[in-house]
Amino acid sequence: MKVFVVLAHPEPASLNNSLKDITVDALQKAGHEVIVSDLYRMNWKTLADADDFLDHDKKERLFYANASKKAYKEGTQTPDIEAEQKKLLWADMVIFHFPMWWFTMPAILKGWVERVFAYGFGYGVGKHEGKYWGLRYGEGTLVGKKAMLVVTAGGREPHYKETGINGPIDDILFPINHGILWYPGISALPPFVVYQADSLSAERFEQVERDYRQRLENLTTIEPIPYRKQNGGDYDDQQLLKAHLVKDKTGFALHNTEQTISETV
Amino acid sequence: MKVFVVLAHPEPASLNNSLKDITVDALQKAGHEVIVSDLYRMNWKTLADADDFLDHDKKERLFYANASKKAYKEGTQTPDIEAEQKKLLWADMVIFHFPMWWFTMPAILKGWVERVFAYGFGYGVGKHEGKYWGLRYGEGTLVGKKAMLVVTAGGREPHYKETGINGPIDDILFPINHGILWYPGISALPPFVVYQADSLSAERFEQVERDYRQRLENLTTIEPIPYRKQNGGDYDDQQLLKAHLVKDKTGFALHNTEQTISETV
Repeated sequence: MKVFVVLAHPEPASLNNSLKDITVDALQKAGHEVIVSDLYRMNWKTLADADDFLDHDKKERLFYANASKKAYKEGTQTPDIEAEQKKLLWADMVIFHFPMWWFTMPAILKGWVERVFAYGFGYGVGKHEGKYWGLRYGEGTLVGKKAMLVVTAGGREPHYKETGINGPIDDILFPINHGILWYPGISALPPFVVYQADSLSAERFEQVERDYRQRLENLTTIEPIPYRKQNGGDYDDQQLLKAHLVKDKTGFALHNTEQTISETV
Repeated sequence: MKVFVVLAHPEPASLNNSLKDITVDALQKAGHEVIVSDLYRMNWKTLADADDFLDHDKKERLFYANASKKAYKEGTQTPDIEAEQKKLLWADMVIFHFPMWWFTMPAILKGWVERVFAYGFGYGVGKHEGKYWGLRYGEGTLVGKKAMLVVTAGGREPHYKETGINGPIDDILFPINHGILWYPGISALPPFVVYQADSLSAERFEQVERDYRQRLENLTTIEPIPYRKQNGGDYDDQQLLKAHLVKDKTGFALHNTEQTISETV
């Protein structure tokens, strides 16, 4: 298996970096090919702006999506964007390592998504007409690939449970797993979350490492989160979930075919 | 009223910038004081890293939260962070203008949150002991202030309805309205969302402007989203919502005292 690891943390001695090292070690030992994009160390250009398009006339108004479409089509994207797209196309599995800051990914990783998931690559794929709204949510450029979020959180696990004050971890990560990964076709595995990460003792780290290595051993057989396909028959022409599928859920959980329970540490 | 406007868009001729101009024009004409942070034009430093702390020894491991706590307490934050904190403390109302990119705010605004909402300012406020988990979710440094998201989205409105394929707009914005604003005490007004923003005709823009000016006229009287207070009696000692309040909802909607319906254009 070809595995692409993306790390977003400013500190080389961080827990996130240690977990990334475990990913590389365990998967290489198991015979997989692994490449890493360590965004802070790469000085990844975070901001989406006119400099992303080699042919864009800076005197013209920038419509970022249009410029992205043109540059992707004509091969005038910047080399850093192209390189990351190639890594995604190469990979069977993408593993994202990041700390949850303010209930989502760090800015540097968000900027990676904004720039790399270009129009024609990450969105705007396929025909948008009639009852079709393009190839998205289970179809698209990256269909058949899998991904997993490996997330550290400062907070306590109960605060992220179904009725916990922060909201359920599955819902907090839904805009990423469903909105960023499933959208261009990637199947998201249940996330691996380490809670109270700011106060991790040596003993707890050992337990986390054992659990995480176990997860990595099972990586190829774990079932992805069963999000519904846009063009799979569950949605009507307005992209509303058909009434008989609504049942007793509200919110994001409607878009799973079953309730997902995240593995937690 | 003192109003702090934060804009995150790379293009000065963008719809987002036009909406920001309407905010400034309408509120100044109504006698309010308005200041603007235009993040792209300010060359806002997006990345949270060791350079944010004037006293941090770069040979030492960076624990961002700890370094933030120390720098906030000792006055050794960088001037750009301090300046934004002062604007927040000055303001009665904060209006955020941004395009929804991949179901959340652009990276530059996320980086603003990560750096400005320091430990001791945005989080880690108050005692964390016993059944208290600090002053957050309706208490904290910024309590009594209000905020509103003014968001443009490329997608169509039905896709963001309660059963729409993207998930409900209220849930998509929950990690911001609840997790970023309500957390340090700010009450979030219902968002103002412009759908299909990439194909806005002159006629539709006129309608949007009328609706938005109407919204601004009512700004001081609109009721905030009624999120529950952490220490208001609705949560138990583990920060789980008490069972009698769960009723027939699942997901983020549990944390409103009533179902919120966003105004849409």
